[in-house]
Amino acid sequence: MNTLQELASALKQQDDIWIYTHMNPDGDTLGSAFALLEGLRQLGKRATVVCHNAFPGKFYRFTEPSDKTIAPRYRVSVDVASPQLLGDYEVDAQKLDCCIDHHRTNTMEAPLIYVDDTAAATCEIIYELLMLMGVSITKRMANSLYTGITTDTGCYKFSNTSPRTHRIAAALMEAGCEYEAINRELFDTKSRGRILVERHVLDTMDFYFDGKLAIAVIPQAVKRASGILPEELDGVSALPRQIEGVEIGITMREREDGCYKISVRTATYANAAEICRQFGGGGHDRAAGATLGSDLAEAKQQLVDCCRPILEELK
Amino acid sequence: MNTLQELASALKQQDDIWIYTHMNPDGDTLGSAFALLEGLRQLGKRATVVCHNAFPGKFYRFTEPSDKTIAPRYRVSVDVASPQLLGDYEVDAQKLDCCIDHHRTNTMEAPLIYVDDTAAATCEIIYELLMLMGVSITKRMANSLYTGITTDTGCYKFSNTSPRTHRIAAALMEAGCEYEAINRELFDTKSRGRILVERHVLDTMDFYFDGKLAIAVIPQAVKRASGILPEELDGVSALPRQIEGVEIGITMREREDGCYKISVRTATYANAAEICRQFGGGGHDRAAGATLGSDLAEAKQQLVDCCRPILEELK
Repeated sequence: MNTLQELASALKQQDDIWIYTHMNPDGDTLGSAFALLEGLRQLGKRATVVCHNAFPGKFYRFTEPSDKTIAPRYRVSVDVASPQLLGDYEVDAQKLDCCIDHHRTNTMEAPLIYVDDTAAATCEIIYELLMLMGVSITKRMANSLYTGITTDTGCYKFSNTSPRTHRIAAALMEAGCEYEAINRELFDTKSRGRILVERHVLDTMDFYFDGKLAIAVIPQAVKRASGILPEELDGVSALPRQIEGVEIGITMREREDGCYKISVRTATYANAAEICRQFGGGGHDRAAGATLGSDLAEAKQQLVDCCRPILEELK
Repeated sequence: MNTLQELASALKQQDDIWIYTHMNPDGDTLGSAFALLEGLRQLGKRATVVCHNAFPGKFYRFTEPSDKTIAPRYRVSVDVASPQLLGDYEVDAQKLDCCIDHHRTNTMEAPLIYVDDTAAATCEIIYELLMLMGVSITKRMANSLYTGITTDTGCYKFSNTSPRTHRIAAALMEAGCEYEAINRELFDTKSRGRILVERHVLDTMDFYFDGKLAIAVIPQAVKRASGILPEELDGVSALPRQIEGVEIGITMREREDGCYKISVRTATYANAAEICRQFGGGGHDRAAGATLGSDLAEAKQQLVDCCRPILEELK
């Protein structure tokens, strides 16, 4: 792996730079890309941000359309863990000059690689890179970087949050980032569709093992009637686990083919990844996923049976 | 006003110290008091924390019962804005030696006073005071102080959050605070009672002016059936405003006497305090309260009429 100083020096020597983001872009890949874009422009360079998808307007006011009139002479990826995540741009992975990321599982190849999995967000790395490049952080850059950091740390709540995260947030506030508006839009705004789905979840949730297991089902019909966006469903998946006393919270979303996509969240000791592995899925200790068959009653029973030994032995 | 250094020097010379917290204690007054308690003990002193109420066990694992066998020879209040807030201890306000607070409206009198309204939480001041006193921050103290800071900033979301807030959070993480568990308990855990009330709110909320005004009603019967705690109702009051497109979110809680306690939250431009002032209440720009009469339909109509000029002129 290279040093961040090597990346800073290399980038300062380049021009006509394409910055690649991952498909289904989130706050961190977009925040990283657009802060770097503005930093490069401040140094007098031409650059543009590209993505498999159109940039979502919602939440990410700092984005602008890609400018493909710039012929790429240097290629950088930010927050992209594997070539597949480039989508339509996957072929460009072979021509990549520089990769900046924070995913431990990164499989990208490039002459210059900087992967720091102690960074809570790629935006933390980009902030430090911009400092090394002598860029001064504008309000707009601060908004981009803050968005990535608060997205990936769930507003400083997730275990990846570090003292460094808070210190960078402090510096971004000093650069004028609109943290109130950003956090309100990302965490405290729910669409009417989401409210509909939340109501359904609260109305139909089942509890087992003295309330230590909660299972909620989201049928296709409810999803369709609500018009909820896929990214909003993630917030809903957190609901069952948030109820007091619940150690394992499971959301079962009916897919179009009738099978159930399950999302498992755990509070303190149950291992979500282990539960999901029993159904061919996987994930992290506290959040994981898998897919179950189309017989709802049977799928539910399988989940209950799987959770029984975990929850009963600790009674 | 005195300097923090003067307070540090004074406290180092005292012993047998009573630390006063405000009634209906929250994370900030308790976090401040118990961190200071432990700091004073580290310096070899006897001290205890007192409060009008019993210390709530929930959320605040760092508390311990008051030890009134210690005869007070020095009295300090933390996060107490006025003598009335001492409740049963109001008479002690006259004997107070030192007052530490962050409320601009502070009306306490004491030989030593330190009120810093730029501090998001009194815990920020206590952290700085402990540093000046040469105390080393233990994990338990870090938990106390982090609890106060995250409580009063709504997990770094409220407008009182500052770069200093984030830098102190970073230091508290380095001292080992259990930020994940603290934030999960404070912000991501809902009692079954709260879920019941949230369901009722979502099921019965009314929208006006193209969805820019949302009004929810919480009848006594629902409150009683749910067994929800008063402090949990504050979280519910935030719900209507969180819906996309809502500028003014109002919750009407039926009181025991049949009147309605209204809580007004606004998103970006409507002034909540001004709305409430029309009904004899008051508060802040984005969150305020008032009390209305017992005729629900009439009270609702009054609120709608009051919001009309604010929301219609900006259509």
